[in-house]
Amino acid sequence: MIKSYVESYPFYVEPFHCDFTDRLFMGVLGNHLLNAADKHATRRGWGIGALNDHQLTWVLSRLSIEMTSVPKRCQHISIDTWVESVMKLFTTRNFALLDEQGNPIGYARSVWAMMDVETRKPCDLTTMYGGDILNYVTPEEQNICPIDGHGRYRFRDAELVRTIDTYYSDVDINGHINSIRYIEHVLNLFPMDCFKDGIKRFEIAYKNESLMGDRLSFYRQANELGGYDIEIRKNVTDESNGEIVCQSRVIFN
Amino acid sequence: MIKSYVESYPFYVEPFHCDFTDRLFMGVLGNHLLNAADKHATRRGWGIGALNDHQLTWVLSRLSIEMTSVPKRCQHISIDTWVESVMKLFTTRNFALLDEQGNPIGYARSVWAMMDVETRKPCDLTTMYGGDILNYVTPEEQNICPIDGHGRYRFRDAELVRTIDTYYSDVDINGHINSIRYIEHVLNLFPMDCFKDGIKRFEIAYKNESLMGDRLSFYRQANELGGYDIEIRKNVTDESNGEIVCQSRVIFN
Repeated sequence: MIKSYVESYPFYVEPFHCDFTDRLFMGVLGNHLLNAADKHATRRGWGIGALNDHQLTWVLSRLSIEMTSVPKRCQHISIDTWVESVMKLFTTRNFALLDEQGNPIGYARSVWAMMDVETRKPCDLTTMYGGDILNYVTPEEQNICPIDGHGRYRFRDAELVRTIDTYYSDVDINGHINSIRYIEHVLNLFPMDCFKDGIKRFEIAYKNESLMGDRLSFYRQANELGGYDIEIRKNVTDESNGEIVCQSRVIFN
Repeated sequence: MIKSYVESYPFYVEPFHCDFTDRLFMGVLGNHLLNAADKHATRRGWGIGALNDHQLTWVLSRLSIEMTSVPKRCQHISIDTWVESVMKLFTTRNFALLDEQGNPIGYARSVWAMMDVETRKPCDLTTMYGGDILNYVTPEEQNICPIDGHGRYRFRDAELVRTIDTYYSDVDINGHINSIRYIEHVLNLFPMDCFKDGIKRFEIAYKNESLMGDRLSFYRQANELGGYDIEIRKNVTDESNGEIVCQSRVIFN
């Protein structure tokens, strides 16, 4: 059994992964976080690959990223990741982003559920494999993630700002709309000017799956933090409010 | 001066970079090719970073990829790349893709021009830096790239199949629509069924830049190879045919 809790995964900020301000796209950063999560889990026998053999899969429920400095083109960045807690139906995993000198430049929090692919039902994490995952819960003194937890959103006067169709490039290996693509579609709602000083905080909560061909409607409202809350609903019609797919929060610098 | 001509760059096929058939997205493969090209060029003093300091940049003109087997999820792939030829205004760079056993699974060809960022004019490659780039032209016996060169397209009865707006995530560090994004937008024109056996050949020719906010119209026609040719035009109106941005060819297995 692996005795360390926190592990570090390096990545390089590719020029083609940067926006017009030379900053790493938030969607690509999210992708790096998910890869680090999978590598950390795989080393402990809980990676997607091994789980798939047992008709199980991790489902990302929430991801929150808060940066003091978004990585820029050609930088070498490290992601530290660890398991914060395990509950019956959810586990939380945190991340720290470090620059080349090892200084923290941001943090992230994520919440995951385990799903049985056949029954489509969540699993009890605390009893699976004899509670093995509990061995990886990180001692408090190593769990350093000084950013707020996931927000709660109340959509009251959100305005429909865009409706899009989904296509081949939006779809992941499971045939669902890719979790990273939602991040891109959300950020595409904003004009160029918003991005000139980078994104301070980005949150997304995945509520329901959508499939290729689903039509996604984006509703936006200003929030009390100076940012915006966005709700994505699928297959909204004149007769129906459709179904909530994601909720997201963006705060710009 | 580096004496080797062909160099090899490995990459790992990330699950989040694969489509619903577990095959690597063609756009991500294109990105890996461009990264390998930049690393190979950088080692020889011709990388984008060094050129930018002299207000010069590489402009990708054409990219053609032909695969006998598209990389699949979790495979370790190598890209061999080398300079095939240098002409006054263009240089051609080839690529071979190798699986974990070192067997070729596909090839690619690319054509590049060098542009002065200030004057927006192309440079004479054969005289820049005393013709240094000519030192890297690969001897014929090492230039093994058994796929057809770039095709010529004649758009006669192409049908307008989609018009899209461009947003933040479409734009690269130079403020132009990202060359990889065009690949995604082209493939998004096709229904899921087309991809079930993978893509055999993909070509794209970059003709003119487009910027965020430009509206892109996609025209498609069947070609005599059993595939499709696509022309992307920007800012087409009732009064104007707009301007050609890209031309592309897709042949499915």
